Amino acid sequence: GSERVSGSNMDVWTLFNQLTQKHEAVNLGQGFMGFPAPDFVKQAGSAAVLDESCTQYAPPRGKPELRAQLAKDYSAYLGRTIDPEQEVVVTAGGNEGLLCVFSAFMNPGDEAILMEPAFDQYIMNLKMIHGVPKFVPLRVKDGVDASRQIVSADDWVLDLDAVRAKITPRTKVLVLNTPHNPIGKVFTKEELEGIAEIAKEHNLLVLSDEVYDRLTYEGRPHVSIASLPGMWERTVVACSAGKALGVTGWRIGWMLGAPELITLCLRAHTRYVFTVNSPMQIGVTHALQYAHANGFFQKQQQEYLARRNRFLRAIDAVGLPYTVPHGSYFVLVNTSPIRIPDGYEFPPEIAQRDYCYKMCYFFTKEIGVTGIPPSEFYSEENAALGQNFIRFSFAKSDETLDQAGERLQKLK
Amino acid sequence: GSERVSGSNMDVWTLFNQLTQKHEAVNLGQGFMGFPAPDFVKQAGSAAVLDESCTQYAPPRGKPELRAQLAKDYSAYLGRTIDPEQEVVVTAGGNEGLLCVFSAFMNPGDEAILMEPAFDQYIMNLKMIHGVPKFVPLRVKDGVDASRQIVSADDWVLDLDAVRAKITPRTKVLVLNTPHNPIGKVFTKEELEGIAEIAKEHNLLVLSDEVYDRLTYEGRPHVSIASLPGMWERTVVACSAGKALGVTGWRIGWMLGAPELITLCLRAHTRYVFTVNSPMQIGVTHALQYAHANGFFQKQQQEYLARRNRFLRAIDAVGLPYTVPHGSYFVLVNTSPIRIPDGYEFPPEIAQRDYCYKMCYFFTKEIGVTGIPPSEFYSEENAALGQNFIRFSFAKSDETLDQAGERLQKLK
Ligand SMILES: CSCCC(=O)C(=O)O
Ligand SMILES: CSCCC(=O)C(=O)O
Repeated sequence: GSERVSGSNMDVWTLFNQLTQKHEAVNLGQGFMGFPAPDFVKQAGSAAVLDESCTQYAPPRGKPELRAQLAKDYSAYLGRTIDPEQEVVVTAGGNEGLLCVFSAFMNPGDEAILMEPAFDQYIMNLKMIHGVPKFVPLRVKDGVDASRQIVSADDWVLDLDAVRAKITPRTKVLVLNTPHNPIGKVFTKEELEGIAEIAKEHNLLVLSDEVYDRLTYEGRPHVSIASLPGMWERTVVACSAGKALGVTGWRIGWMLGAPELITLCLRAHTRYVFTVNSPMQIGVTHALQYAHANGFFQKQQQEYLARRNRFLRAIDAVGLPYTVPHGSYFVLVNTSPIRIPDGYEFPPEIAQRDYCYKMCYFFTKEIGVTGIPPSEFYSEENAALGQNFIRFSFAKSDETLDQAGERLQKLK
Repeated sequence: GSERVSGSNMDVWTLFNQLTQKHEAVNLGQGFMGFPAPDFVKQAGSAAVLDESCTQYAPPRGKPELRAQLAKDYSAYLGRTIDPEQEVVVTAGGNEGLLCVFSAFMNPGDEAILMEPAFDQYIMNLKMIHGVPKFVPLRVKDGVDASRQIVSADDWVLDLDAVRAKITPRTKVLVLNTPHNPIGKVFTKEELEGIAEIAKEHNLLVLSDEVYDRLTYEGRPHVSIASLPGMWERTVVACSAGKALGVTGWRIGWMLGAPELITLCLRAHTRYVFTVNSPMQIGVTHALQYAHANGFFQKQQQEYLARRNRFLRAIDAVGLPYTVPHGSYFVLVNTSPIRIPDGYEFPPEIAQRDYCYKMCYFFTKEIGVTGIPPSEFYSEENAALGQNFIRFSFAKSDETLDQAGERLQKLK
């Protein structure tokens, strides 16, 4: 095998999905929806499959109907007129957009700045293109102790000087993720302005992962760094229909950016996957139209807020500290108060992993609730910062959340 | 932009699709179906989208139902029991399978042997991973003059010594394509044995692109090199549902191979696209079941044979020499007898290209029939071999083929 596929165990998502099945745990691990997809979304997709204009290759850029719809949607919120012919490319899921951006702007050995904790696929994607990740941690701000008290996602802050300290002549890309997985932080305009300043100072391309853009709570406004002055020219935004419409299995995403940037990303995309499945593109187009006409996104936000609160109450009931998320569908719960019994036995694939994996295994097997080890989202450099957390997803049904809550009672 | 996305014009498929539209030509260019997709295929896909078990992420390996079906289908024809848990991965189209194989077995600077003419995405995929293509031409055998007479795809042969001469210590992968695009050659068991010998001698991985495996004519048996002695351990087969079922827009393919090989390919796949869209996977599963139960593949072969013959009669009527294809849905037509008028003007994007592109442009604009320039399938080294051909696809409706035939009369 090649270097780029070396050294990996099974991906964390599959590992914990399999452990969940084996131990009949409640799955709050991988971020997929544990409730039915909206009927109008399924209907739109189902109809598109029957449409003869969806049976053959789409253009590599994507179906014109979807690009037109996206250009319309994002023109409003980015505050500029997006050109569907030049500023949008449909991708095979949000993830493929990330990959294309890294591929288009980084040569082997070039560096990308990641803010930790960072969605693990960034590092996986970078490894495939021989890119080098450099890590800057988001930290809970001074005076707030996440191991003892409930903190807000707002309390996790980025030290801009720490970012500057990591920039070298080989730094090409700065990865931003807002709303943030796994913290649930929604970056404010002021915070984004600080990051934008650095990108402009050092001529960096910003990859803005905004796959949770439709999922913010309590009226937090999602702001895209691409909408700040001078940033459209240096930002590619990656989004996801799976997250916006509740169908992670459809694998439709998109990249948005200035024509010069998108042209390069399109080349990578065309060479990697050539084009994206046609019927789901048209399904997404019609689903977006229906969603706008029916206030779906507002309703969905209310539902997720209710799920979040339902789950936070369950965590409150066992007295574990956590971070209150204002976006995305994850909660970081602090496991400091919990002890794994001395001499507890782990299967080989877990025994070799860190404390955080072991704690997650313990949750799956003994408590019957699966979460994801945030150490997967940290480099070795900052590994210590992630050790005492477990990430739960609340994109699950009320029944599932309640069942998880009951099982978590064992921790009391 | 990075090196890997440097230097490319618009991809040839989009270029000639756009020229076709502009000049209202008959499109025999890109290999997509110009007739309705089978109803049972669309119905299967449409139903799967409504199925709640298809709305969320599939496992990176692919939906178990599809892997089980593929294992069953290929066990029969590969003459061994395929393990659906370890020997199959579902990909985002056949192309992503090719990319994963290159990625899993080649480090930057490693070499892959391609037989020219070679599907252009091989070179594009290799460029993305910093792999180096080495070219060996398939040649019309001695005594047969393709510029003057009709030849058989069987007449295009591979010189095994020429392959051996291209092998270096950095050669990792040998790419085989049978049935062949664009020649339409179906490699015989004897020919494959010769290639297998070389792969074993030099410890090469064979990437066997068999996306046209269901499309052979006149009873030619499609043989997979993976079925030859000692080859399962060193071959990854890439296939395509789009081609087998007439839905190129669905972007579902698969890789087959021994567990040690597939494990590495799966890592590449997981890091590139994570997982493939779920509903189309189940759509393909049910469509395959229906196809087997109803003799669809035999019927489809008869239909393609009729289309092939219909189109060859049209070419006969204008007296151009061509290669008779025994598999895939392409015909290489020899354009030696045709002259582009002196002083003929080309738009800038064509003026800078080679004679072959110019001839294709001439066909689109003046004759009103679009083909693809096979020079796109040749390296500079062997460019001369492709100059006098144009590739037409006959995966089109009878009306389209007849209309093309009428327009080609202008050449007389
Ligand atoms: C790569 S699967 C990840 C799903 C997801 O976005 C998450 O759970 O973080
Ligand atoms: C990359 S689009 C190609 C379609 C096809 O297989 C062909 O026309 O050769």
